Amino acid sequence: MPVVRLDLAYDGSGYHGFARQPNVRTVQGDLDDALLRVLGVAVETTCAGRTDAGVHARQQVVSFEVDEVDDLERLRRGLDGVLGPEVSVWSAVEAAEGFDARFSPTWRAYRYFIETRPTADPLTRNWTWHLGRSLDIDYMNGAAAHFVGPHDFASFCRRREGATTHREVLDAEWEESDGRTIFSVRARAFCHQMVRSLVGHCVDVGLGRVPASATPDILAAGDRQQVGTIAPARGLILWEVGFADR
Amino acid sequence: MPVVRLDLAYDGSGYHGFARQPNVRTVQGDLDDALLRVLGVAVETTCAGRTDAGVHARQQVVSFEVDEVDDLERLRRGLDGVLGPEVSVWSAVEAAEGFDARFSPTWRAYRYFIETRPTADPLTRNWTWHLGRSLDIDYMNGAAAHFVGPHDFASFCRRREGATTHREVLDAEWEESDGRTIFSVRARAFCHQMVRSLVGHCVDVGLGRVPASATPDILAAGDRQQVGTIAPARGLILWEVGFADR
Repeated sequence: MPVVRLDLAYDGSGYHGFARQPNVRTVQGDLDDALLRVLGVAVETTCAGRTDAGVHARQQVVSFEVDEVDDLERLRRGLDGVLGPEVSVWSAVEAAEGFDARFSPTWRAYRYFIETRPTADPLTRNWTWHLGRSLDIDYMNGAAAHFVGPHDFASFCRRREGATTHREVLDAEWEESDGRTIFSVRARAFCHQMVRSLVGHCVDVGLGRVPASATPDILAAGDRQQVGTIAPARGLILWEVGFADR
Repeated sequence: MPVVRLDLAYDGSGYHGFARQPNVRTVQGDLDDALLRVLGVAVETTCAGRTDAGVHARQQVVSFEVDEVDDLERLRRGLDGVLGPEVSVWSAVEAAEGFDARFSPTWRAYRYFIETRPTADPLTRNWTWHLGRSLDIDYMNGAAAHFVGPHDFASFCRRREGATTHREVLDAEWEESDGRTIFSVRARAFCHQMVRSLVGHCVDVGLGRVPASATPDILAAGDRQQVGTIAPARGLILWEVGFADR
């Protein structure tokens, strides 16, 4: 059966996350409803990153199998129209046989936006954590460097029964740009609440609460109580989904 | 009497412009109410730029006279709290005697954000005009160059009875950045709907509907019917207010 790949962006502020749940508004719920309306048949969607409530996406990838592929640009426009301004459908293409948005990507990249100035910028408030305090970015990069590589991230994950917390982080870096402090992190995959926990730890380091040098011990402890701060969802954006090793 | 200067930013999406009007929500109306609440006395506010309904500000300057000046950082925090997330009060300082937010600035700068890609970015939708078509930025800069200098901008203004439409534009330029097409324009002052009219004309030029070389004739005509497109308010941001010649 042909596989369709959709690339989406969304403002997650008004959604209870990507994954469909009963009785709450989710991106997948809205998308599945839109697909039913435009295609006339129900399909089973999978995604590259199951973003939490309030988390956004610049690039989310979704796939589904369908009996036959018609005019995909018409499908894209139809979905984009039905979904309204909070979700944009950038592209709809036929993917290679066996493509699956959950299993085919080789990495995911997230960005996290923090504002350190005393007052928040109203125009970026939906996707920025307004911390309102100064951060030492050198300390934070000192902590982030310890994340790179294969590690057990149990200290930085909300555990799921029976699931591994081993992950491989490919790169992790803080930069200052245009008055904001931004974290860019890329991994083959992430576990639940991992980026927000990594950010929370780096912020504790950047505020001088925890030394960057404590990071290896916190990783080694495998204990979520070691990480004091979980950064709020609003500052997190699923930024890019990659399909080739690099 | 001491004069207080406030610097604000706001998301204008939910406001009927800056200037107070009866029975609608305006930035000045909310600000005056907040000042009354925090100061305990009514004050008369003036501003650097009377932004229209749906127009935003990265830097708006407001001033008012008050009997005595108390703790201004406390005033700033109080206003910032009362005004909610759509308006931020960056600073509150005592200004020099005779300072007036309307008359003291020597220039105002606006930016206008256009998205040319087929689909809109949901995270910037409040402050971007989603045009969804390609623009020739060289043509647009050809048109914008004609705006610079002292001119009668009657063709680019919504006329007010008895008011002059002579203005001096200091610089006007289009650039492409991060997938967006951005207009930066600076003038000693602007007349009503002037930036949106300049943008509308440049977009007509960038789409190939009007040659850039027609711009001097359109300026000379002094007739608003010459300009076909008025760009929507949502893409416009009052960017900076200047107080020295440069």
